[in-house]
Amino acid sequence: MGGDYGPQVVVPAALKVLSEMINVKLILIGDQDLLNNLVAAHRGELGTRLTIQHASQKVEMDETPSQALRAKKDSSMRIAINLVKSRKADACVSAGNTGALMAIARFVLKTLPGIDRPAIVSALPTIRGHCYMLDLGANVDSSAQNLYQFALMGSVLASAIDSIKEPSVGLLNIGSEIIKGNERIKQAGRMLSQSHLNYAGFIEGDDVYEGRVDVVVCDGFVGNVALKSSEGVARMVRHYLQESFQRNYLTRFAGFLVFPVLKAFRQRMDPRRYNGANLLGLNGVVIKSHGGADITAFAHAIHIAVIEARKDVPKHISAHLEPWLSEGQVV
Amino acid sequence: MGGDYGPQVVVPAALKVLSEMINVKLILIGDQDLLNNLVAAHRGELGTRLTIQHASQKVEMDETPSQALRAKKDSSMRIAINLVKSRKADACVSAGNTGALMAIARFVLKTLPGIDRPAIVSALPTIRGHCYMLDLGANVDSSAQNLYQFALMGSVLASAIDSIKEPSVGLLNIGSEIIKGNERIKQAGRMLSQSHLNYAGFIEGDDVYEGRVDVVVCDGFVGNVALKSSEGVARMVRHYLQESFQRNYLTRFAGFLVFPVLKAFRQRMDPRRYNGANLLGLNGVVIKSHGGADITAFAHAIHIAVIEARKDVPKHISAHLEPWLSEGQVV
Repeated sequence: MGGDYGPQVVVPAALKVLSEMINVKLILIGDQDLLNNLVAAHRGELGTRLTIQHASQKVEMDETPSQALRAKKDSSMRIAINLVKSRKADACVSAGNTGALMAIARFVLKTLPGIDRPAIVSALPTIRGHCYMLDLGANVDSSAQNLYQFALMGSVLASAIDSIKEPSVGLLNIGSEIIKGNERIKQAGRMLSQSHLNYAGFIEGDDVYEGRVDVVVCDGFVGNVALKSSEGVARMVRHYLQESFQRNYLTRFAGFLVFPVLKAFRQRMDPRRYNGANLLGLNGVVIKSHGGADITAFAHAIHIAVIEARKDVPKHISAHLEPWLSEGQVV
Repeated sequence: MGGDYGPQVVVPAALKVLSEMINVKLILIGDQDLLNNLVAAHRGELGTRLTIQHASQKVEMDETPSQALRAKKDSSMRIAINLVKSRKADACVSAGNTGALMAIARFVLKTLPGIDRPAIVSALPTIRGHCYMLDLGANVDSSAQNLYQFALMGSVLASAIDSIKEPSVGLLNIGSEIIKGNERIKQAGRMLSQSHLNYAGFIEGDDVYEGRVDVVVCDGFVGNVALKSSEGVARMVRHYLQESFQRNYLTRFAGFLVFPVLKAFRQRMDPRRYNGANLLGLNGVVIKSHGGADITAFAHAIHIAVIEARKDVPKHISAHLEPWLSEGQVV
């Protein structure tokens, strides 16, 4: 029920995924009258692959996490996470309030043993392919121990999803400037260089998009600002490019001539292809879609949830965590 | 003598500026034999507008600030800053080691009264024009008081350079995520909302390039990562665009047809147009060029130095600082 568009986007996206992926069942949670109306035309062809579960409440986008946790026990978000907890669902996807989603997921599902704080992780495009970056906003002022745990989780994720044997892990730092990072970063660097992870050392902001490493580790404040700045730059570039081709009749005609090339370029740069961030470190798969996601973007987030549930990412993290964490605690 | 290319870039850039700007005199500082050779052909036409001052040392790019400060007292960098101190030069421009430049400038020139730490500030392109962002890497773990001082300095800079009466100031924060910022950010926000500045509240990473504010204030770690991530994204986009037009003969021909449009686009996105960061808060104008700057980019950094020296930015900051700072200390 959340996000900027609610069921208007979520329902068509769910129908799209069901038509694309066989062996996937979806449960829509929210106002059952509304949802029933929206799926009515497709009822017959889908059979039991699409079910609807009623929720009498919804978490508002501006609600605080604690409010949502206390007062919204019959919200679509809470019920979705409860279903993951009771193993009636293998994953949950939401475009709703990030803070509330994290708080409820943490309360209901709990973090994996050895993980102090879950992190938000997403795939980002690079010149060579993609990388995973975490944390993207769940934790501010992360300690060295937190950063170390992010590195472990990110490495397991890249390994499970992309079948990379030893994903390279970089610690985001400021490079050639005056004070090369702070004590927390330096200590996390020492911990990582003594670990079994394939630690590639410090990297800088521009290295992220060069694809120098498979996993980029940073504090949530830094990661959130870096991600949103990047989105802002990409939007500005698209704006400038569009403007360049719309300056006059001649440039418009030129744009018409190269339309297929520009279209291919836009598709490659399409941020919807990267929609769907993982709340990593929980006892279950929870995927956060951009609030402003459209049908294509939200369908992509569902795809990610399916992949992560099939790969059982939380189990992989648990399995890999024990020995590595005890390493970390020695440092 | 510093930067990736040394005098090979600095000398032609200086000659370019002298041919473009009348009433500007430049002093080249470094190995005098080398410099004399490079300018020999232009000696006659330039007269006293270009002088050379010998320096027997140079600061290496990998030297620590304290090493450079102690052992490089006859370096080109140190002499250039000494000339600003003794008012024999109105500004200093360097493509050298940022940390050393900041340390030497701070030691020789001192910070302005009321400023605890200088900040690195640069203009960034936005959809609407440009904005100023600080700090870009001089200070990590900035306190609320530091952020407040950055806001004051940035506001005075935008006002002096762009003749904006009341520049709007935004505090870079993470928005809709779980924990909205940390205590430092919140306190700085409270201080700014009680000040005489035109404070626009918290902004997020993507707002920077939307041009929502004239001045963006953040901690140096965050600013440096955001800036370098942005550069990385812009480079990736150029790479993708180039690739789209080089896929086959047809797309190459298409690229040939729209060459003027793409060229105009590239010029608008050209990062060289934004080369030249200000070390703000010092008793003097010190401009830091990108180490990898080419002739066009370094010439731009000199242009900025000329403008800031003409506007006497440090004096403006001093004049505006006293009342505002006492305000800040009340909070």
